[in-house]
Amino acid sequence: MKTNRIYNFNPGPAALPLAVLEEVQQNFLDFKGTGMSITEISHRSKQFNDVINDAVARTKRLLNLDDRFHVLFLQGGASMQFAMIPMNLLAGDSSADYVDTGTWSTKAIQEARIQGKTINVAASSKDKNYTYIPKNIHFNENAVFVHLTSNNTIKGTSWSDFPDTKGVPIVCDMSSDILSRPVDTKKFGLIYAGAQKNVGPAGVCLVVIRQDMLDRTPDTVPTMLRYDTYVAKNSLYNTPPCFAIYTVGLVLKWLEETIGGLDRMAEINQQKADLLYGFMDAGGFYRPTAEVASRSLMNVTFRLPSEKLEQHFVQQALENGLGGLKGHRSVGGCRASLYNAVSLEAVEALVDFMKTFENKNG
Amino acid sequence: MKTNRIYNFNPGPAALPLAVLEEVQQNFLDFKGTGMSITEISHRSKQFNDVINDAVARTKRLLNLDDRFHVLFLQGGASMQFAMIPMNLLAGDSSADYVDTGTWSTKAIQEARIQGKTINVAASSKDKNYTYIPKNIHFNENAVFVHLTSNNTIKGTSWSDFPDTKGVPIVCDMSSDILSRPVDTKKFGLIYAGAQKNVGPAGVCLVVIRQDMLDRTPDTVPTMLRYDTYVAKNSLYNTPPCFAIYTVGLVLKWLEETIGGLDRMAEINQQKADLLYGFMDAGGFYRPTAEVASRSLMNVTFRLPSEKLEQHFVQQALENGLGGLKGHRSVGGCRASLYNAVSLEAVEALVDFMKTFENKNG
Repeated sequence: MKTNRIYNFNPGPAALPLAVLEEVQQNFLDFKGTGMSITEISHRSKQFNDVINDAVARTKRLLNLDDRFHVLFLQGGASMQFAMIPMNLLAGDSSADYVDTGTWSTKAIQEARIQGKTINVAASSKDKNYTYIPKNIHFNENAVFVHLTSNNTIKGTSWSDFPDTKGVPIVCDMSSDILSRPVDTKKFGLIYAGAQKNVGPAGVCLVVIRQDMLDRTPDTVPTMLRYDTYVAKNSLYNTPPCFAIYTVGLVLKWLEETIGGLDRMAEINQQKADLLYGFMDAGGFYRPTAEVASRSLMNVTFRLPSEKLEQHFVQQALENGLGGLKGHRSVGGCRASLYNAVSLEAVEALVDFMKTFENKNG
Repeated sequence: MKTNRIYNFNPGPAALPLAVLEEVQQNFLDFKGTGMSITEISHRSKQFNDVINDAVARTKRLLNLDDRFHVLFLQGGASMQFAMIPMNLLAGDSSADYVDTGTWSTKAIQEARIQGKTINVAASSKDKNYTYIPKNIHFNENAVFVHLTSNNTIKGTSWSDFPDTKGVPIVCDMSSDILSRPVDTKKFGLIYAGAQKNVGPAGVCLVVIRQDMLDRTPDTVPTMLRYDTYVAKNSLYNTPPCFAIYTVGLVLKWLEETIGGLDRMAEINQQKADLLYGFMDAGGFYRPTAEVASRSLMNVTFRLPSEKLEQHFVQQALENGLGGLKGHRSVGGCRASLYNAVSLEAVEALVDFMKTFENKNG
């Protein structure tokens, strides 16, 4: 680690691989001999076409997508998807099942209801403050889709397996765990992820959509809010967020070529999470908040014996070069986000600091 | 100019000030001593709050906006605004006047009609292939707004003065000339501009909206598509395009502190355009396409005696370090975009090349 860089456990925007940042920096005044910055080249140029095509191809390979799937780059983050999904997929009387596993699921449900769409909340873990993932859910077989949030950034829970929806396509917000592990994409009709956690910088949202999901959009939906617009134009209907897509491409390259793909990434992520949860479970000073079977590997939420100690912890960690450990303002406590770009070395440094802090304050 | 950089006449994404690019590059691994890249810091951090507040304050100063105006940063470019404007401002039976001055105006009209909104095309210059700006327009006094495109990037025309709309607020797409000259903002209810021409990199859209325009949005409009969401949260309802906003802030700083504000910028832009149009008018080999009174200072569109010569011209210019001179694919010909970041030196180099090319091929 370069001495001026910290270990970054931010929940998003989050750490990016140092090699990616260095490549961006090195080429920033002259992209591939064009004599222009990546921020200055045309989105219609051969150079940018290569950038976006490479990012699409790498996403398809990494997620093992078959030919029915399109990979798109949109703007507005996952929050815009909360609106676009019901706008595009729920015409007329049709309805969808949503599972409420916390803040972001709840917002997705709200955005469908604002538009007057028919939504069925098939399950919720609100009864225990969203500390677990519901099991044995009865889904409506006539639902157009089942909406899930694969990983709950704020509550620190995630779906270890996706439920059997009896063939109803899953529409899934994977913002905080996409590309962190292999996923059986056959169950999915649409996957979306704001890039700023596992995929790249803020300002672009990765959307993977299956061909048959495109046919449902009413004619009254504006062009920029229709998925088929992005499919028809390879995400280049209008000027896309070029810099963000370029950086996502570099992260995908790092994931394929430096890490070696999703199986290996999942191993490393498991190792990181095991180290941190294992340390906390063996003690008692730090208490993980999620139920064991529902624990997120990406966002490790935990409490200390008092709020005062939590404040001390976050502050002293930062003074020791460990940043972003404060829990979300809506729930308090602490949180360490262990996205792909957070190294095992960083987690080891965190656990070392936690031991020292406990010794002084426990 | 650094030897590996070209003179960039791209229509957008376009040239950025070299000093801005260098500042981005220099700080890319460690933003203001945080030990993180600007792409890795939280949008809720003090550091990013300073970034966005500074960009808002500079925009207000540069445009001389009074307290009724809000400065917002959205995603989706001007094309998303084509949809959001009627969605937010045209409820029930209300209607708006649109002036059709070419490609982007036409798209704005289409996006209102897709949503079933009532639109009156108050004037159009389609009869002469959009080579002029209509005059003496009769506007509907009951219109909620009048929509204009201040500068027509593809057709090479612009409004030198804005029309008298009898108090009806102007809603204006200023994507390709915002901050290129002082504007009397009192006439406007909403100004919007995709950043990637005069303001920064692609991936963020600057919106200036007057307080009274916020009251018209129906309850059924999703949160991310409502202007009042961005006003209430200082554009931080969800994760914004942090890198793009940061870079826009640096461009605004350059405009205020290095150039010296919009009066000075307008002088330089006039000088650049006069040099290029003056050279072409004195000859005859290069023929500007727009009517003289409607000429854009930002996008100088012109033809050569044949399409073959135009191809030669664009290609040989690039070989001589002058890029981005091809006209839009929908109209052909040539175009030199002279946005704020294109220096007088660049235009002088272009005119020198044009003389040489004419001598060889004229």
